[in-house]
Order: sequence, then C-alpha cells, then structure tokens
Amino acid sequence: MDYSLLWLDWKRKSSLPAYTKRIVGMPATRQGKAALRELLNGLKAMGADSELCSGSDGCPSIRLNECPGGGEKAELHRSGEGLALIGSGRGLIYGVFYLLRHLALGEDYPEWESSPAYPIRMLDHWDNADGSIERGYSGRSFFFRSGRPVCTARTRDYARLLASCGLNGCCINNVNVHGSALKLLTGSYKRELKRIAVCLEEYGVALWLSVSFSAPMELGGLATADPLDPEVRQWWQDTSRQLFSAIPNLAGFLVKADSEGRPGPHSYGRSHAEGANMLAEAVSPFGGKILWRCFVYNCTQDWRDTETDRAKAQRDAFAPLDGQFRENVFLQIKNGPVDFQIREPVSPLLGELEHTSSILEFQIAQEYTGQQKHVCYLLPMFREVLDQQMGRRADRDLVAERISAVCAVSNTGDDPNWTGHDLAAANLFGFGLLSWDPSAEPEAIAREWSILTFGGDPEVTDTVTDILLRSRSVYEKYTVPLGIGWMCVPGTHYGPSPEGYEYDRWGTYHRATHREIGVERGPGGTGFTEQYSPALAGMYASKETCPEELLLFFHRLPFDYRMKDGRTLLQRIYDDHFEGVEEARAMSDAWDRLEDRLDPAVFARVRARFREQLRSAAEWRDVVNSWLYRLTLIPDEKGRKLYL
Amino acid sequence: MDYSLLWLDWKRKSSLPAYTKRIVGMPATRQGKAALRELLNGLKAMGADSELCSGSDGCPSIRLNECPGGGEKAELHRSGEGLALIGSGRGLIYGVFYLLRHLALGEDYPEWESSPAYPIRMLDHWDNADGSIERGYSGRSFFFRSGRPVCTARTRDYARLLASCGLNGCCINNVNVHGSALKLLTGSYKRELKRIAVCLEEYGVALWLSVSFSAPMELGGLATADPLDPEVRQWWQDTSRQLFSAIPNLAGFLVKADSEGRPGPHSYGRSHAEGANMLAEAVSPFGGKILWRCFVYNCTQDWRDTETDRAKAQRDAFAPLDGQFRENVFLQIKNGPVDFQIREPVSPLLGELEHTSSILEFQIAQEYTGQQKHVCYLLPMFREVLDQQMGRRADRDLVAERISAVCAVSNTGDDPNWTGHDLAAANLFGFGLLSWDPSAEPEAIAREWSILTFGGDPEVTDTVTDILLRSRSVYEKYTVPLGIGWMCVPGTHYGPSPEGYEYDRWGTYHRATHREIGVERGPGGTGFTEQYSPALAGMYASKETCPEELLLFFHRLPFDYRMKDGRTLLQRIYDDHFEGVEEARAMSDAWDRLEDRLDPAVFARVRARFREQLRSAAEWRDVVNSWLYRLTLIPDEKGRKLYL
Repeated sequence: MDYSLLWLDWKRKSSLPAYTKRIVGMPATRQGKAALRELLNGLKAMGADSELCSGSDGCPSIRLNECPGGGEKAELHRSGEGLALIGSGRGLIYGVFYLLRHLALGEDYPEWESSPAYPIRMLDHWDNADGSIERGYSGRSFFFRSGRPVCTARTRDYARLLASCGLNGCCINNVNVHGSALKLLTGSYKRELKRIAVCLEEYGVALWLSVSFSAPMELGGLATADPLDPEVRQWWQDTSRQLFSAIPNLAGFLVKADSEGRPGPHSYGRSHAEGANMLAEAVSPFGGKILWRCFVYNCTQDWRDTETDRAKAQRDAFAPLDGQFRENVFLQIKNGPVDFQIREPVSPLLGELEHTSSILEFQIAQEYTGQQKHVCYLLPMFREVLDQQMGRRADRDLVAERISAVCAVSNTGDDPNWTGHDLAAANLFGFGLLSWDPSAEPEAIAREWSILTFGGDPEVTDTVTDILLRSRSVYEKYTVPLGIGWMCVPGTHYGPSPEGYEYDRWGTYHRATHREIGVERGPGGTGFTEQYSPALAGMYASKETCPEELLLFFHRLPFDYRMKDGRTLLQRIYDDHFEGVEEARAMSDAWDRLEDRLDPAVFARVRARFREQLRSAAEWRDVVNSWLYRLTLIPDEKGRKLYL
Repeated sequence: MDYSLLWLDWKRKSSLPAYTKRIVGMPATRQGKAALRELLNGLKAMGADSELCSGSDGCPSIRLNECPGGGEKAELHRSGEGLALIGSGRGLIYGVFYLLRHLALGEDYPEWESSPAYPIRMLDHWDNADGSIERGYSGRSFFFRSGRPVCTARTRDYARLLASCGLNGCCINNVNVHGSALKLLTGSYKRELKRIAVCLEEYGVALWLSVSFSAPMELGGLATADPLDPEVRQWWQDTSRQLFSAIPNLAGFLVKADSEGRPGPHSYGRSHAEGANMLAEAVSPFGGKILWRCFVYNCTQDWRDTETDRAKAQRDAFAPLDGQFRENVFLQIKNGPVDFQIREPVSPLLGELEHTSSILEFQIAQEYTGQQKHVCYLLPMFREVLDQQMGRRADRDLVAERISAVCAVSNTGDDPNWTGHDLAAANLFGFGLLSWDPSAEPEAIAREWSILTFGGDPEVTDTVTDILLRSRSVYEKYTVPLGIGWMCVPGTHYGPSPEGYEYDRWGTYHRATHREIGVERGPGGTGFTEQYSPALAGMYASKETCPEELLLFFHRLPFDYRMKDGRTLLQRIYDDHFEGVEEARAMSDAWDRLEDRLDPAVFARVRARFREQLRSAAEWRDVVNSWLYRLTLIPDEKGRKLYL
C-alpha cells in the first residue's frame, strides 16, 4: 500500500474494556456488514482479542442491532457491562467509527445518540479527467487516470475515511468540466462510474457528478442548451434516466453555470432558476438533487470601474430568485462573498434565502491559505461562519441553522499522506466532524485528530493541538492584512504580490495610494454592507464597530487611522507581519522538539513543510511591509528592517 | 501556397529597361544557377520578356559573370546599354536580388559594388522541436513539427527571403535546448537536417544548431560534461566529426551556457573560455565556429539585495576573459546590458573586447516591443547601437566596427505573412540590409520595403514609411518610461504591470517610493557606469549629461526632478503616456486612410492589429499613469483622467 490510512491507522492500546472481546450481532445489509468488519478489524488493530459470537452468554459484549431503513442516526448505549449499538446499516457505520475513535481516545464507555445536522455532507473534488487536480496540492487524482475514471483499493479507503468522520458524499470531478470529463454523463464511462459508486456506497458515501450546462450541445449534438427548449429538456431527462438507472448510488449533479466563462442559462436569456429547475426536473424521478453554484460575478471587470463591487454579485444574482427553485435544488454558497480568502465576512446571501435550500461551500484545499505548504487549520474559521447570527429572524438565524447542507472543496490527492502536508489532514477530519455537528469544538477536534493520527503521547497532542489552533491567525498575520484579500501572486495564488491583481479584470482591488488603502463598502461606498440585515449592516458600516480583522474588507482608510489599541493602521500591519513570522518560527520550533516522539518519516516531511512556510512567511512579511514602506515612507516604529 | 512571399512578390512594372530582355551567362555552380533562375523569374514577374541568350549579339543585356571561389562580393556595373553582374555564385545571388529590388524601385541602371560588412549575418530561431516557438508571435515553427525537423517548400522560400536581404545563416533551434531538440546532435535526425542544410545552401544560407553544454551526459551517457575531461572532449570531437561530415552546410554551434539555469562549464569549476574553447577545438577541423552567448547573470537574485546590479553581470563575466578564446569562438552579446528592452544603453561589453571576436545579437522577435501586435520598427534602435562610439580607441571604435558578426532573434513563424503583423516584416528585411551594410538608413530601408511589399503608390509608401519611423518612439512613450524597463507582465511580457517584477528574482527593479524612482547606477550607486570608457561613463553618470531617454536607466530620481524643458519627471511621464496613445491613434488612422489602396486582406489584418495596439496602449497609459498617481497623489497638470 503506497498511502497511509490517516486517522484510521488504529494504534495498539495497552488495555481495552472487557466488552471488546465479544461482538454480537449479524447485520444483514452490505453497510451493516461493513460496520461489523470495521469494528472487528479496528479492535484487532488496537490489540483486542475480539470474537464474533452468536450471543453474549451474559458476558460483556458489543451488541450490533441493525434497524431497517436508510437513516443515518446512530445510538451507542451502555448496556450492562457492555455496549449496544443501534442503527440502520449506515447508522452502524457511523456508530462503529465513533466507538473506535473514542476507544482510541481512551474512553471506556463511549455513549452517543446522534443524527447528522445535514442530510448532505460532502467533498467537492476538482479533479480533471486527465488526472490533474485544479488547485490540488497533494499529488494527482485518485479518481481519474489518463482521461478515465478508475476504481482502486484507494477508492474504498477513501470511502472509509469519509464515513469515519461523518461525510456521506463526494463529487468526483471538477466543477470546470472539460476534456473527457464531459463524457461522464453519457455511456462512455458508465462501467467505471458504477464501480466507484458501488464501492463508495458500502460506506454510505453517495456519488455526485459535476456537469456542464451546455452538455446537450457538447454531447447531444443539439443546437442549443436553452433550458426552456423541449429538446434540451428531453435530452437531460433521457440522459439522467440512463445514468441514474446504471449507477445505483448517484445523488445528483453539481453545476457551475454562468460563472468564470462556464456556459449557463444566461446565454439564452433564462434565469438561474430556469436553468437549475430544468435539471432538477430531469433528475427528480430518481431522487436526484441539483447543487447550483452561486459563485457568479463579472470576471472581466474594468479596473477603472469603481461602481461594480464583486462582493455584491452573488446576493444580487440570487436573492431575487428566492422561492423560484424546485425543492431538489440546493444553491451552493461559498462561505464569504468573494472567494475563500483567509479572512472574509460571511456571505450575505446566507442570510437571504427563506424559501430555497442552500448548501454552504467551504474550501479545505488551501488555495489561498498556504497550499498545504503552510499549516492552516481552518476549523476555527468554519465555526465563525456557522456561528454567525444573520439578524434576519428570531429563531434559527445562525448560518448553521439556515443552511440545508455543507460541502468542502477537497484537499486530497494521491500523495502517500493524502493531503500533502500531514497536518492538513486535520482539516479533512475536522470538516467531517463539523458537517455532522456544527457545534463541534475546533480544539477538541484537533486534539482527537492528533491522538488518532500520532498516538497518545500528551506532549505530541498538546504541541500539535497548539500549532493547529494558532495556525490560522499566524498565516493571516504574515499574509494579507485585515481582510483586504488578494495580495497573492495572480494565477498561482501562492506567495505575495501586493499589486498583482490591482490592474487586472477580477474585481479584486485595494486601490492603495500613499495615504489610503482599501475599498469603501459602506453606504458611502459601494453599499455592500446594505446586503446584510440592519444589525450586521450597521456594525460593518461603521469603522468603530466593524471587527478590526475585517476593517480593510469594509473600509478605505488612511494609513494613520488609529486602531482601538492606539496603533496606526500602518503600524498594526507592520507589527502583524513581523509577529506572524516569529509565531510561525515558534510553531516550527515546537514541531522540531517532537523529533524523538514521532515517526521519523512523518517528522521529516512536516519539518520540510515548515522550512518552506518560514521561507514564504518571511517573503510575505518583507514584500508586504516594504511595499507599504515604499508607498508611505513611514518607518516601522520599532526600527525593524524594511527594504527600499 | 499558404503563405506570401513578402518583398519577393515582385510587382508588374509598366516599363523596364531594354537590357532586361536579354540575359547572358551560364553560371556553373548551384548558387550561380539559383541566381540566374531568380533573375529570370523575377524579371518575368515584373513583366519583362526576358530570354536567356548565349551571347548578347551587341544588344543591351544583363551579363552574369560567375567567378570562382565562395566570396560574397557582388559587382553590378553599367556595361554599354546593359549591365554586367560579376561575382561568385553567392555574389551573383546577392547581385541579382539587389538588381531586382532596384528595378522594382524604378532605377534604370542600378550599380553596386559591395561586400558585406560581416562574414556572419544570421537569424536565431527559438523554435522548439515540438513546433512551438519561444517568444514566437507568428504561429508555429516551419523548421520543426511533432519533434522532428522538416524541410518543405517553405524552407526554400525562407532561404530566398534571407539571401534577398543579405543574410547568410540561421540557427534553427532554440538556445534553450530541450525535448527531442537535444538529439539534433546525434544521428537521429541527420537526414532531415541534411535536407534542410542543402536547401538553404543553394541560397548561401548556412545552417547553425543550438547545442546543450551537457550533451555528453544527456546523449553520450557520460558522467560529466567537464570541458577538461578527456572523454568529454573526445565525445564532442567524435560527435562533431559525424555531424559535420553528414551535413555539408553546417557552420557551427550556438551555446547558451551557465545562463538562466542552462548547464555550462561553471558546474565543473571551469571558465566560459575553457567551455567555449573545448567546443571550438572540436569543430575547428571542419571550419566550424562557436557562438557563445554572454547573456549570463544571477537569475535568482534576492530583491532585497541592492548591491548586485544585473546590468553589470555580462561585462564582469566576460571582459576578464578577453584574449583567452580560440579564434573560431564568437562571443554573442545582446545590444543592451539587460535584455532587449525598448530602451537601453549599449552593452559596455561591446567596448571591452580587443582580442576576442564578437557577434552582436538583436531581437526582431518583439518580445518586449509589442509582440507583433504593436507596430515597432526597430531599425532606428539598431542603428543607434551600431553607431555608438565606445570611446575606447582612436579608430574603429564604433560598435559597428568593433563587432565581427551580427545576428537577430527571428520574428518568423508559419503564419501566412511570416511575421504575424504584416509591418513586422520590415524588421526582418531591414535587419538583413543592416547586417550587410551597417550604415544603411532606416528611412530608406522602410521606403524600399514598403514599395517592394505594397507596390509603388506614393501615398502608401509615404504613409507606411512614416508609420514605421514613428513607431518605436510611440511604443516607448506609452509603455516604459525613460529606460527604466521591466514594467511588463511577468512571464508573458505583454501588457503593463508596473510592480510585476519588483519583488521577484530577476534583478529588474525600480524600487519606486512615493518620492523617487529608479536604481542609481552611477559611481554613488551600483557603479555600472564605470563599465564604460571615461567619456561614456562621465556622460551617463551625470544627470545633466545623461540622455534624457535613458535617465531612469541610470539614475534614481525624485518625481519632481526637473527635465531640461522645465517639466517635472512625473509630468514628463504622464505627458509621454497620453501623447503615446494619441500618436498610436494617429498611426492607426493613417493606416485606415489607405483602405482603398491596399489588398483588402492585408489592410484588414493590419487594421485588426492596430485595434489591439490601441486597446493595449490605452491600458499601458492608464495603468502606468494611475500607478504613479496613486504613489504620488500629484495630479496631471493638464487635468487628464487618472484613476484611483
């Protein structure tokens, strides 16, 4: 096997509760059987001498009780000196993994009664048919090779990893559908797709496909993809029928339409709702769903145009359509209004939809957050988003309560450690746990992940947890100041280029002069703040009440603006950048001190990443600070080195 | 035929001198026969009713008198009522093309007695084996297709074009040798190469090849490419013997070594002289020559490092080696010390070499000068370089007199018009004429090229000549100010990005603050000016005597620096950019007025390029000016629009 099993690589335990010796229960379904197998194998790996018994004979045991139906609920109760696990086949899978994880954490009688918060909890892979991965930082695709989907032993282990942290779906191909990925919709690759779907299904993981809105033209030879055209509708219905009948575990389609050059209903004068509903109708007979991305903006903006504000685009495009979508359409909304920056306010669209289902999209692929060369534990950011009160209604007003589903752009590839940076696997694991329970604590998740991954040495657990929890703030400090975004190198999005996007077409500007920086988004500016509820709008619109970490997202400010602690805006940015590098060094040093406590290969791999992080962090610090120094000619108050 | 013949597409003349009726002479060599054929075909195309006669019978005639030997001298004399053309086979070719061109210009008795100024006058093609062209803006390669060299009818027409303007060599593959181009040295493609060489030879055009310094490892399986290693030397000798004996018209090798990541002698602690001499020794028995590029600099500079000055690198690397090179080595020196920017001073290395042959390298591929989307007639720039007095000795001190050979990076590809922009062919033609006679006048060249290309309509000739002569200054005005260079988009080198190279590794910085811009290269700065003779050094070192168009190449200056005409530096830059766009528009309008006088396809093609030039020029203007405005917050004195 040329890859690790991450947190499923169960460590040997010196002692286990007596009930682990005896497993009772004969699940009937394929998923129930998988649960049983995971339990036996997991306990064996931990050193238990478990036996599958037809009855408990009064001895302590783990009793698996499979219920009919396909629900995801799992119940794990103490039963005498043993445990009882109750659920459907899928519920048993979640329960078994919960049990194994908590035994590994050292709990004697883990009890749990839980249903997931959302029925759809999935990963979006941006894998291309040629095996490359858009914004992939962990090797090549394990779903595609040389233009074709492939199903290997790794597919099954991938499904196990997903199920073990609560995920139940994945879209295996890039939302930018090109090359032979177009043909996934038609007969060409049905056999491979079915193989993958069946493999995933064993662990309750549904298969999703990204489709191109113009597929009726590209594949069907039609002259149009107009969603109101009867032939087009028929083509989608026929294609869906064939696909859903061939692939048992297909859940639906993900669509990026009228976005960044992708085809969509606007080409035919139709709305997003007309486009999405046409697809929804086609997949509806098979229980299929449509995930319709809201990442829509003008990507050929003239930088001279100060009226257009990209942050406003998604709410402007979709809020007026609320209520027009079929019930099996989910609007897929990125967490922030722009694009996965290290700091953004929550997307105002998340507060708008009252009659439309939505799926919140995070990105664990670290496109703008260090590309899995830098440690950046994203769970605290995700929690901020989920915990945001939108101020639109009295109850169920939190983002976590307003959404109907969650997904994340995956950070996986065929690297031996799956995620390039070993510590990036915490984002994968953590996203899973959060998708099941959005009130899960980032610190507890980090601690659990560390123990499962590196074993129970408290020194290791404490250090790794501490590194993870500090990492996002550290990354933010040495990169882009106070929510302003987009100071990365255009195209690659790695490394600093403060003016790189300034005169380009992407609508991402800071318009810095030697006196001021930022775009004013309050009522006196682009008016973006007005997209929020009055409470949020008021808070963001005022410099005094705007959270400081978002100050430059919302406001254009002079460099001598006084922060709450009395420092100037400029000095705050200088300080953050110097501190960020020092803090990165401290994280790296802390890791180095674990050398004798970790597997040498893992230790060395992460150490090498830290070396690159420190190099890159110093580059960020020096470029951003020197750029500001050249602009302002105001030196650092502490006399630290800036470069002319 | 899917391409034009450019200036060799002879136009019908209403009258021709009587002597064109009768051609006398039977050249014996392949080249002499080609000359005769060109003469007959050319005259026929112009409408002459020419006959090849065994004698003149006392009637006016053109008498071809082929002399033995391989010299390039051509003599064209009036002889009674006719003309006598005297030369070797190669001389006859040059004489015939001269005669045809001048008949086309309307001269009755063109007389000429001329030898070329340099024995090597060549084009360097940056064509890759896969058919792509590095920095190519005119389609794909016509020398390579799918990894192999190809010889087609176009190869012969290419040779005709070269000979017709005086060129006698071409290096067909990229100096960055990779892919299957590596194998050009060994047996793999000998048949194709021989075919190309034979085809070129008919028109006196020699074949050159770019080679990789580490070929003994890449191809020979040796463990080293150390130039002092006996096995390495033997490998090069054997390889050269096989290659030169298989390819009759091979002139030698072009080498980019120890430059931008290419392998070279420095890897083995050897000098450029040791590296070049080893190759020179290997090709010497076959009359071969080595062209050794001096484009050597630190391409991983830390932008924080203000000591290193890329402009100094070439002189520092090569001047100390003067006299150490074998006589069949030519050091290939770019015209400026940096890299083909729209404005640079002459390379100081051109003033240094007293005991080493040099080949001056121009670039007619418009990498930094508009990529054949913008008109930019480069001959005035080339003349400035050739006419530069280096101040190193009493006689033969001009660059044109110090160099031993000339070459230019070619602007050709398989586009139907060869050069993408129809007007870019003037650079190809003009470089040829200048390589034969470095005192040729850019205006006369432009006029001649226009008449040969578009016919004799004086309105067309005047307009085209005027556009060409203004074009370089116009391009310079709206792009990079006063010699500072490198404000283009990194990588592509097209379009503006004033800070694009600022924090990168290429040694190309302006270090602008809100008060000052530029790198000081005088004695108080990097000391680059000291690389020149005292006269030039003194002129460049002083802001007062430094030519204004080079002011920001040599000096760091405050934006309120007063130019000679009283304007501030900043206002001068603003003005240049506004004027440059207006002047580009005037050129475009002038072209539009030729609509009824030109072939509709040619007219439309050039008009489309002008549209793009105007769009791009406005972008350059707005980005550079707005960037300066944001830096300084000083408005344009004339109140023109700048963008915050």
